[in-house]
Amino acid sequence: MSDILNRISDPSMLTDLSDDDRQDLAVEIREKIIQNVSKNGGHLASNLGVIELTIALLSCFRPPEDQIVFDVGHQCYTYKILTGRSDDFCSLRLINGISGFPSRKESRYDCFGTGHSSTSISAALGLLRAKKLSGETGRVIAVIGDGALSGGMAYEALNDAGQYGENLIVILNDNQMSIDRNVGAISRHLDSLRSTSAYLRTKDRTEKILHRIPLLGKPVYRLLLFFKDLIRMIVHRKNPVIFESLGFRYYGPFDGHDIATLIKKFRVIRELNQPILIHVCTRKGKGYNPAEEMPSQYHGVAPFDVEIGFSNGSSKSFTSAFSESIVQISEINNDVVAISAGMMSSSGLDMFKNRYPNRFFDVGIAEEHAVTLAAGFAANGAIPIIVMYSTFLQRSYDQVLHDICLQNLHVIIAIDRAGVVGADGPTHQGLYDISMLYAMPNIELLAPRDYADLHSMFDYAVNTTNGPVAIRYPRASEKKLTSVPNEKGVESQQLAMGSDVVIFSVGSMTPEAYDAVEILHNEGISCELIDLKKIKPISEEMILKASEGKRLIVCCEEGVPSGGVSSQIGMILARNRIHTAYICLNIGCENIVIGTRNENLALQGMDCTSIAKRIAGEINNSP
Amino acid sequence: MSDILNRISDPSMLTDLSDDDRQDLAVEIREKIIQNVSKNGGHLASNLGVIELTIALLSCFRPPEDQIVFDVGHQCYTYKILTGRSDDFCSLRLINGISGFPSRKESRYDCFGTGHSSTSISAALGLLRAKKLSGETGRVIAVIGDGALSGGMAYEALNDAGQYGENLIVILNDNQMSIDRNVGAISRHLDSLRSTSAYLRTKDRTEKILHRIPLLGKPVYRLLLFFKDLIRMIVHRKNPVIFESLGFRYYGPFDGHDIATLIKKFRVIRELNQPILIHVCTRKGKGYNPAEEMPSQYHGVAPFDVEIGFSNGSSKSFTSAFSESIVQISEINNDVVAISAGMMSSSGLDMFKNRYPNRFFDVGIAEEHAVTLAAGFAANGAIPIIVMYSTFLQRSYDQVLHDICLQNLHVIIAIDRAGVVGADGPTHQGLYDISMLYAMPNIELLAPRDYADLHSMFDYAVNTTNGPVAIRYPRASEKKLTSVPNEKGVESQQLAMGSDVVIFSVGSMTPEAYDAVEILHNEGISCELIDLKKIKPISEEMILKASEGKRLIVCCEEGVPSGGVSSQIGMILARNRIHTAYICLNIGCENIVIGTRNENLALQGMDCTSIAKRIAGEINNSP
Repeated sequence: MSDILNRISDPSMLTDLSDDDRQDLAVEIREKIIQNVSKNGGHLASNLGVIELTIALLSCFRPPEDQIVFDVGHQCYTYKILTGRSDDFCSLRLINGISGFPSRKESRYDCFGTGHSSTSISAALGLLRAKKLSGETGRVIAVIGDGALSGGMAYEALNDAGQYGENLIVILNDNQMSIDRNVGAISRHLDSLRSTSAYLRTKDRTEKILHRIPLLGKPVYRLLLFFKDLIRMIVHRKNPVIFESLGFRYYGPFDGHDIATLIKKFRVIRELNQPILIHVCTRKGKGYNPAEEMPSQYHGVAPFDVEIGFSNGSSKSFTSAFSESIVQISEINNDVVAISAGMMSSSGLDMFKNRYPNRFFDVGIAEEHAVTLAAGFAANGAIPIIVMYSTFLQRSYDQVLHDICLQNLHVIIAIDRAGVVGADGPTHQGLYDISMLYAMPNIELLAPRDYADLHSMFDYAVNTTNGPVAIRYPRASEKKLTSVPNEKGVESQQLAMGSDVVIFSVGSMTPEAYDAVEILHNEGISCELIDLKKIKPISEEMILKASEGKRLIVCCEEGVPSGGVSSQIGMILARNRIHTAYICLNIGCENIVIGTRNENLALQGMDCTSIAKRIAGEINNSP
Repeated sequence: MSDILNRISDPSMLTDLSDDDRQDLAVEIREKIIQNVSKNGGHLASNLGVIELTIALLSCFRPPEDQIVFDVGHQCYTYKILTGRSDDFCSLRLINGISGFPSRKESRYDCFGTGHSSTSISAALGLLRAKKLSGETGRVIAVIGDGALSGGMAYEALNDAGQYGENLIVILNDNQMSIDRNVGAISRHLDSLRSTSAYLRTKDRTEKILHRIPLLGKPVYRLLLFFKDLIRMIVHRKNPVIFESLGFRYYGPFDGHDIATLIKKFRVIRELNQPILIHVCTRKGKGYNPAEEMPSQYHGVAPFDVEIGFSNGSSKSFTSAFSESIVQISEINNDVVAISAGMMSSSGLDMFKNRYPNRFFDVGIAEEHAVTLAAGFAANGAIPIIVMYSTFLQRSYDQVLHDICLQNLHVIIAIDRAGVVGADGPTHQGLYDISMLYAMPNIELLAPRDYADLHSMFDYAVNTTNGPVAIRYPRASEKKLTSVPNEKGVESQQLAMGSDVVIFSVGSMTPEAYDAVEILHNEGISCELIDLKKIKPISEEMILKASEGKRLIVCCEEGVPSGGVSSQIGMILARNRIHTAYICLNIGCENIVIGTRNENLALQGMDCTSIAKRIAGEINNSP
């Protein structure tokens, strides 16, 4: 194989490559991505799907003057490789390595950071309008998947962009998937558009021929326009193109793996001066068989063997424990329904769906709708469980407050990936949920330390309470405390008795705190450990009683310092004039580095060794 | 006039009224609404627009078995009057009176509470699916305005509802307005649909005739269906109906003030078993001339004289002070752009728009998009100011965190209506913004106590910093502290010196605290008062220094207790082992009653008299 990638020192060099060279380049990049992701983990299927599309884009547009915003960002590897980060690509997602997402800090070619879904059109429109105001040139392009298109803010942005006729370019990367297979009416609508491609090819050919005929061309062209529209209408009979209703000119669908055709189309479109949506069809996992066959499994992967593929010996995790619990609980209680926002398999709802298909609802990437839908269910007596990653729950702050909490409805929010989530970087950490929910009325907040706790808590949430409850659990496997029996229920549990220090721990931090207590015990420091379990509301009396006579009070919480449990305990101490020394261990997303969950916890002093060291330091240095 | 309203003891009685009676009923209700709103204040224009629509709905559907969800809820007065709350209607928005919004607590006829925009379709779909699972009968109807339709979650809900063919009914109440005139491509799309009404009337007539012809009817009907679709396509040539792309059957547009026609249509539609969208055109303010002519001004009104109309002697407020400041500042700094989410006039941006039309962007009711659009602007060097009510900023939690704060972009958020807002009730209070933003990295948070402060703060935000800044101000006029000069800049200012107590005050609470200091001074209690001004970050050193030697520390903050300034000061005290007594004055929306801002502040002990009383009590009872 010719070594084209090494010859590309600047993305502008793509313009002059031959078609064959571009094909070879795609092969090289595909190989590089598979090799690196198999070593470091990362987003595989989505990145393999857009190699040709990215090459075509960079052959026609010129970043950084032209700006490309990748929605979600988990399809930016080819772009990174071609914009100066080929050599560093081996450090992908490793500690201090390059990010798996676009990052303004990392490169001037990354014009806007992404991570969460459906932001690209809004951001691109802002970039474009700012360019216009300051008289800068260059086009702005949003690349958005069909999955992200179910997010409401994408529609809000199309609605805004379509009204003024600004020359924004939106590339719809249609792979028929978000992480799971896509759902929703818009997805069916895209199906119907794909089936019309034959007609559209004809149309394009006609246009081309007519443009070549001088004089005669124009009137005939106009006449034909009428018939074309008629044909178009017949083809799109029951399927009017939604994007045209929103003021966009629609082109496509085109084969997203045919670089030469894409380049031809992009060169034409580049010269147009109106909002354009280009529909490109790609295949997730393209070029790596296991990923093509199981794109959901190969969406975000841990390191794997390229020859064998991903071994599905999925070890048990809080997610799978949730999966089992919820099926059991729903067997007995028929009112339970489960709602997912485009995350069925990754949040462990496959089993529930198979068992109770009529009680399962996947709404697509649409967190706001998911929450209010659940509120509607509860208002008529069902018991909805919304399953959402902590970081994506941020999308529903208002709906949780306004529709669930203010109305005190019996909705259960299962918050997966709560705490530090690892290599995805700052955008994806689950550090805000406690702070968010703590400010809201009526909702109870629970944090299990292990699977047994998790089960009791969901049982409590479904069968005992009748107001809103959120249960947060980490992206991790349990660390079972073998020497301590679980107490059923959701009240705080004393896990160690001691006289010098009291540690209040929140869910996932309990096993770390427990090990720290052991280390400190060996150093002659005696610690009481209380696993709070129910973290909102907490009993002021319990906090005060446990703090009595101690030399140090500690709170360990995998979340931001502001507005969570640490802050609540601080308030209790201040209001009650307790002047025992108080330290709290917390973490905000600004402190997160690219690296694993354990690396980040250790860096932030939240592993058992660091916790013990911090406490010993405090005790030994105090009078 | 015959007294029909008094004869209606149950909404089901509407079914048997004659057309004339229904017309008369509309007249009576219109009169009642105008009279009451002119006395108590409230939402006038929107409620006057849907009187006929509501009568028609209640003549065909039977709540509570059939369920109607009113989006936003500011058009529910007729519904309230006709479902058992006619006698209580005079207490609308008064303390302990009936709410201006639907409320599950208030009546079994209010199946779902609303307040914020664009939630109705999600909630209705949840209600409907829960009904189906439990085998209950009855239809579910969402009534949504064209303004609310620009909110992304409405689209998320349509996308979900359209996919399964469930028999949800959505009534699009198209009055071409949100609070201001509507913007966006979807709004233009509705324009085009309205213009096709002639064609659609023909179509309906054909259907009716064909259905009457037995045997022959069916084949001819089928044949005609093809031509009808063809005609439909030609009519909708460039305007395919967006709702049909989303799986809804579209009916309309119909005249929303023609009760008899609406009833005929609803009776047909009631029997259909698929997702239906009915497009109804209404006129905001219908039947009251001043409101028809100026619907924006008559959206939400204070008490007014029915004969003369609303007197526009708008007294100066923080909103109008903002309006002037922003125009001044933007005169000098050309990089400033302003972004509104459907609230141009009510948030004081008219003047800016008139002066700098190219730098003003109204995105419609689309708070998520507004925020990320601003981030895009900032990424290319513009200085965007997003103007949003505190309560609606809740919609953008994730976008503020993910797109602005994590990227540390120079975006300014002007938070209007921060704090207690008065008679709109729990859904609209601006009590969460401090708690939300305190958890986020990089962003500074400022709270002016008067207009001079407000001006310095916007000047600072635009011209001095280059990271994210939020400035929160109340729905009120300033209470100027005449004896104290303003210090320019954003650092904390000592407004009174004293030895017993230190009070830290946040923005709007400063004048109350200042008056409390005076009261306490006369009682021999000596207070230091510090107006924090910049409330995030606050200087730990300053807090500790001011607290030194005091007998009591107080924080006054018009916001929730969890995660805001009170909580931050509590943490500082706990971490530094200060055991001076600490009290904080805060307010959560669960404590809000229907009533004015001042009534609520007094009820919560946050007016100067209550503050003084609370502090005196604490000082006099402590050893």
